[in-house]
Amino acid sequence: MPTTGKDVAVPHARSGRPVRITDVAALAGVSIGTASKALNDTGQLRDETRARVKDAAEKLGFVGDARARALSSGRTYTVGMITTDSFGRFTMPVLLGAEDALSAGEVMVLVCDTRDDHVREAHYLRSLVARGVDGIIVTGRSADARPPIDVPVPVPVVYALTPSTAASDVSVTLDDAGGAAAAASHLVALGRRRVAVVTGPTGARSAVSRAEGARVALGDRMVGEPMHGEWSERWGRQVVDLLDQGPGVGAGAAAGGAVDAVLCGNDQIARGVCDRLRETGRSVPGDVAVTGYDDWDVVALASRPPLTTVDMRLDELGRIAGRALLELVAGGHPASVSVTPSLVVRESTLGA
Amino acid sequence: MPTTGKDVAVPHARSGRPVRITDVAALAGVSIGTASKALNDTGQLRDETRARVKDAAEKLGFVGDARARALSSGRTYTVGMITTDSFGRFTMPVLLGAEDALSAGEVMVLVCDTRDDHVREAHYLRSLVARGVDGIIVTGRSADARPPIDVPVPVPVVYALTPSTAASDVSVTLDDAGGAAAAASHLVALGRRRVAVVTGPTGARSAVSRAEGARVALGDRMVGEPMHGEWSERWGRQVVDLLDQGPGVGAGAAAGGAVDAVLCGNDQIARGVCDRLRETGRSVPGDVAVTGYDDWDVVALASRPPLTTVDMRLDELGRIAGRALLELVAGGHPASVSVTPSLVVRESTLGA
Repeated sequence: MPTTGKDVAVPHARSGRPVRITDVAALAGVSIGTASKALNDTGQLRDETRARVKDAAEKLGFVGDARARALSSGRTYTVGMITTDSFGRFTMPVLLGAEDALSAGEVMVLVCDTRDDHVREAHYLRSLVARGVDGIIVTGRSADARPPIDVPVPVPVVYALTPSTAASDVSVTLDDAGGAAAAASHLVALGRRRVAVVTGPTGARSAVSRAEGARVALGDRMVGEPMHGEWSERWGRQVVDLLDQGPGVGAGAAAGGAVDAVLCGNDQIARGVCDRLRETGRSVPGDVAVTGYDDWDVVALASRPPLTTVDMRLDELGRIAGRALLELVAGGHPASVSVTPSLVVRESTLGA
Repeated sequence: MPTTGKDVAVPHARSGRPVRITDVAALAGVSIGTASKALNDTGQLRDETRARVKDAAEKLGFVGDARARALSSGRTYTVGMITTDSFGRFTMPVLLGAEDALSAGEVMVLVCDTRDDHVREAHYLRSLVARGVDGIIVTGRSADARPPIDVPVPVPVVYALTPSTAASDVSVTLDDAGGAAAAASHLVALGRRRVAVVTGPTGARSAVSRAEGARVALGDRMVGEPMHGEWSERWGRQVVDLLDQGPGVGAGAAAGGAVDAVLCGNDQIARGVCDRLRETGRSVPGDVAVTGYDDWDVVALASRPPLTTVDMRLDELGRIAGRALLELVAGGHPASVSVTPSLVVRESTLGA
């Protein structure tokens, strides 16, 4: 069988057999019990003794056995992360953030891709429970709440990005209204007075929250009502034509009420707005400032000009979810929290 | 502690205590040994008996304990997947494909994001070995070979996407030359006779392989030498200007040798080519056919027109890697393989 590394299992320097804890204890000049305590960071030992045992383990290449530790502690130092989103562009950073926070607690993450299939979800949940995972993180691409997972035994659970409908569950979510408000305040601070708000479908909670956050922050600087459409560049291009039929867009527009900024609910819409404005002879940000949402590199940086946008901080959301799960596992009571996004300023509002 | 599911651990219907294998055996009317064999799919039993035991387990909500199974089999039914790429857009589909193949074998995947940090990689490898994983899949964003991983004990390993420099290791890679040849053959079949080949940096193996595959398939239909630049829309736009200074592009070009197709090494370059051609009054595919590579939705579908491109089939690569690892774990000898990409035809070569 093709393998890698050395040819025999952790060979003892002299005998060639695997290194055991007895070897470590012998080299350190301590009892097996002391060696075990030192390696597991348990018991009352002098720092010097603990260091000597660890040095000996290091010298001999002693690997230990996490399974033995798991059985003795009643924990597996493993959590499951289950998603309905095939770890897409929203849930992937959440997974990596959670993995980062959990690895600090020596916990590893088992990934379960349910593909939005209830049968697969049930199967994975049974498997995770049978493996005795310490806890489960549930995530998905939508900000719309989902029912709690159905597991046969009590397991610590944290919902990330997609909250649980049960108020007693711990959910870590995004502050979409706050992100849109940050973009709106930035436009206002730049002196823009006639801002169109354009976002995704009315059925998406994130689209509605972003429109509402923008409305509150803009006050009477919002032109008309928020415009809802698909999350696409095409919708962004259409929006410019629709505005031209209404209030007008940019310095060249006839009416004094022409739009001087477009606040968009995602980067794709914003890129479409920029493209259509450029192709019809208006400059961004000279005539019209444009903001996006997501800070998705392939869209935000490729846009002409690059987009001022809102970084959702999904990795931070994942880290918070991971830490909340560790706290639950330890018997704590973490609260549900909402993560505040941060504004990223680029040329689409500030000029080259 | 907020938990989910029922209030007590798998309660027995009458007594309220957890369901044990003795309960399953009693309900099925068999011995504990027979129940165990039936649930673990071991031993010689009549199908009818096995089915009756499984029915009883299902009725009682018996969960079993994967840890006990793992200890008795010497396997953990867990593999590690380690990446240098933070499970980015190339490695994410590989992870999901591998997870799909492995879950069919009841194996779950622990994710380890090394962030291209050798210290983190060494730490994760030690942890995976200490957990007794059945095997490890190593992946990364680049098609450039990497040194074998360094582990203290022999572990079955499969390299996915990023091959190992050791020929004795099992590597599952992409046939980049084959993918580019498929795009080239498609252009030739459409009657294009003057094809420019544009790709990524000379230092990237995938860029060079794609250029070489295109060269072989195009023969004397390739105009000039492959043009290397960054993997960006900007480079695609620049390419059109460079070609205009040379052989010319499209039906309106003066010389008879004008380019009538541009074969691009990724979708971003192709989108840039399409944008620049449109903005300078040439039609795609009327004047010039354009192909991409990657089939990355956000670029290929948003392009005007949508791109004919090459689907790398990274999910299939992941599935093959997962199955190869299962074969290694079972003592088999899977061969290194190269996955053939598939052409996806859209408007950039065929018209709306």
